[in-house]
Amino acid sequence: MADKPSHITGSLLTIGDEILLGDIQNGNARHIAAQLRARGFLLDRMITVGDIEDDIIENLAACLTGSHFVIVTGGLGPTDDDRTCAAVSRALARPLICNRDYARWLRVRVAELGVEWSREVERMAELPEGAVKLGLDSAGFSVVHNDVPCYFLPGVPEEMELLLGKEVIPDLESRFPDRCAYLKHIVRIQGLLEAQVNGKLRSLERVEGVEIGYYPQRGENWVSIFAAASNEKTCQTLLKSAKDKIVALIGSRHISGHNDECLEKVVGRLLRERSWSLVTAESCTGGLLARKITAVPGASDYLDRGFVTYSNRAKSELLGVPVELLNTHGAVSGQVARAMAEGAARNAGAQVALAITGVAGPGGGSAEKPVGTVFIACVTPAGQKVEKYSFGEDEARENIQESSAQAALVMLWELLFGDTPLVCD
Amino acid sequence: MADKPSHITGSLLTIGDEILLGDIQNGNARHIAAQLRARGFLLDRMITVGDIEDDIIENLAACLTGSHFVIVTGGLGPTDDDRTCAAVSRALARPLICNRDYARWLRVRVAELGVEWSREVERMAELPEGAVKLGLDSAGFSVVHNDVPCYFLPGVPEEMELLLGKEVIPDLESRFPDRCAYLKHIVRIQGLLEAQVNGKLRSLERVEGVEIGYYPQRGENWVSIFAAASNEKTCQTLLKSAKDKIVALIGSRHISGHNDECLEKVVGRLLRERSWSLVTAESCTGGLLARKITAVPGASDYLDRGFVTYSNRAKSELLGVPVELLNTHGAVSGQVARAMAEGAARNAGAQVALAITGVAGPGGGSAEKPVGTVFIACVTPAGQKVEKYSFGEDEARENIQESSAQAALVMLWELLFGDTPLVCD
Repeated sequence: MADKPSHITGSLLTIGDEILLGDIQNGNARHIAAQLRARGFLLDRMITVGDIEDDIIENLAACLTGSHFVIVTGGLGPTDDDRTCAAVSRALARPLICNRDYARWLRVRVAELGVEWSREVERMAELPEGAVKLGLDSAGFSVVHNDVPCYFLPGVPEEMELLLGKEVIPDLESRFPDRCAYLKHIVRIQGLLEAQVNGKLRSLERVEGVEIGYYPQRGENWVSIFAAASNEKTCQTLLKSAKDKIVALIGSRHISGHNDECLEKVVGRLLRERSWSLVTAESCTGGLLARKITAVPGASDYLDRGFVTYSNRAKSELLGVPVELLNTHGAVSGQVARAMAEGAARNAGAQVALAITGVAGPGGGSAEKPVGTVFIACVTPAGQKVEKYSFGEDEARENIQESSAQAALVMLWELLFGDTPLVCD
Repeated sequence: MADKPSHITGSLLTIGDEILLGDIQNGNARHIAAQLRARGFLLDRMITVGDIEDDIIENLAACLTGSHFVIVTGGLGPTDDDRTCAAVSRALARPLICNRDYARWLRVRVAELGVEWSREVERMAELPEGAVKLGLDSAGFSVVHNDVPCYFLPGVPEEMELLLGKEVIPDLESRFPDRCAYLKHIVRIQGLLEAQVNGKLRSLERVEGVEIGYYPQRGENWVSIFAAASNEKTCQTLLKSAKDKIVALIGSRHISGHNDECLEKVVGRLLRERSWSLVTAESCTGGLLARKITAVPGASDYLDRGFVTYSNRAKSELLGVPVELLNTHGAVSGQVARAMAEGAARNAGAQVALAITGVAGPGGGSAEKPVGTVFIACVTPAGQKVEKYSFGEDEARENIQESSAQAALVMLWELLFGDTPLVCD
């Protein structure tokens, strides 16, 4: 990527002790990178430093070298820890000058909040000479220094996101009309190991402007296509050509969706197409499967109820699982998983049922059924299936629960898919 | 923090296009920072660059200046995109030399995977002169350059975490026996706005070595205490003193827990202490509340079942909500929330029930009950409560669901807490 001259690349400087201390993720960085890329701008460097003036100055200077633009987040608040303005003033040799409009807005805001006006708040309105205020209802300003536009944004995600979208990106677009286009596409692959995906795609030849990436996910594999070209149309052509080749090499049988089409969405669409309704019956996942399914808007079209049946009593009372079955095979068994699914389908009058029962740990494991042992049953008019999974004795509870819910969705997808082959465009 | 000489601070250099493109979070950075801090090491700079040799060289040189140690992650794999070794070799002027032990292990591994031995794989075993291999079953090595220990770790989180814990931190500990101790404490606050928390803590005087931070979370506020001192004991004393003052100023009535004691855990403990069982009945949250409660190990002690009743029919059939009530007041109403809770308690024979019904959107809103309108009911032997919430018409579905589940936990906590005042130590 770096050897193409028309890439417009920038540096991101994040200021925040809480990131350096490992208290929070730098979620802003990901958002900014993704938003910029979608509009034809790349980041080639991300730097995080603490609220220390000298560190900010040193790294701001580094960012100004070799970048088309610089974005800085954080350190614009009223407290003593907020050193960005002072550092920018020193780094760029621009004295701090009160921005009257912003000072006026701050006075109103401070009065609204019932907070006293103080020197600290007054300081927020003092911006480096030549700065242009970005928005008025939060901190943020821009300075063009040595022809490099520099944007200083608040660290609060909502405020940063608003200014990025409304001020920074439009300004960048007007400053850099001639730039590359970038497109990204994800192919979501089921039922193949990472090595198998690699094997199938070995014959894929390198194409200039196209990068293929492999991202193993929980229970599925993603192949990403990143296309860069001088214009959007060429980009689309490159992307489509790569996508078609990948789909052909992988086989549409293994492709559950593209981009943000997670299994929950795809399964929902397949159910809606068939006018089938779904019911869930969960033991060790405790509602996680239902939660995933109902995270998709419109899930009420195909899901009307779900059961969390943690105890044996709940399994019997709500799903009609025979007590003898529980006694003979134990709650964690293929027989009970199937009975849970059948009972849930009966109760809900649903065509399709998914049931999960297992040992999520950390307690409750035995030699015969160690932590990570999970049985999943799926009943559909197109067929049914019961499977045993071993997600690993040393796995964390949360991972076992996540893997179980994902495996249940894969099982349902395979049964629905087998019913009517999905055509991938 | 910066003006104390005994801080041992390092730089973290992350190599990865996928982070710069905004495809993934730099989750490794947070993990490394938190692990280091717990053992008395701080990061004062995090840099992310792409898989470009010149960029790696430039930034590695910057990291070597003014850092006690350097950690680099990523770019150690077998593909052409993995440029770290070549860059380190050039940056430190150390030729690449084959590490025989690692080459031998790679041969075995490659044979196991059924992959062909190739020049690319061979290249993985070529390390900069003077490098010490870290572990044998993954990429990773260390080099001491100009007295600065530099650790090169794989980007795969599991492999990185293993080497960090087993190799990097022990090595750092032996190299820097004289260093600060750091302790972090989180006080979790309920029922106060951020401004109110700030107001109550205004009289808190500054103490050398102690930093107080404010982190608004969904539905609760966190106050963090970060203590730094020359030894662990002084650190603990500083921390305890600050914590006691904060608890006294906030009032224990508003403190739900400390550190990782999320509401789900605290509520579980309070239920267990009372030998009360809990049942959930969820409409718009679709299992999220049950999922949160069952994410806590041992939740089966107090939760034996939960209901996802998305449709009116499910509310009537499973929870006995009268059809007239649904017709008169609508499914999204205080009356139905209460009937759901009462019905769930009856069905489960549980002392405590939590019910949520609302409009999570994006569809389903009306003038009277816009998206974000949620009713929550809680029934306990210590009292009951029904509340209406408005989480915002423009909020994302996921945020409304998360806020609803959190509000339900807060309501339950308040009722349980009111029953027997919690003593905060």
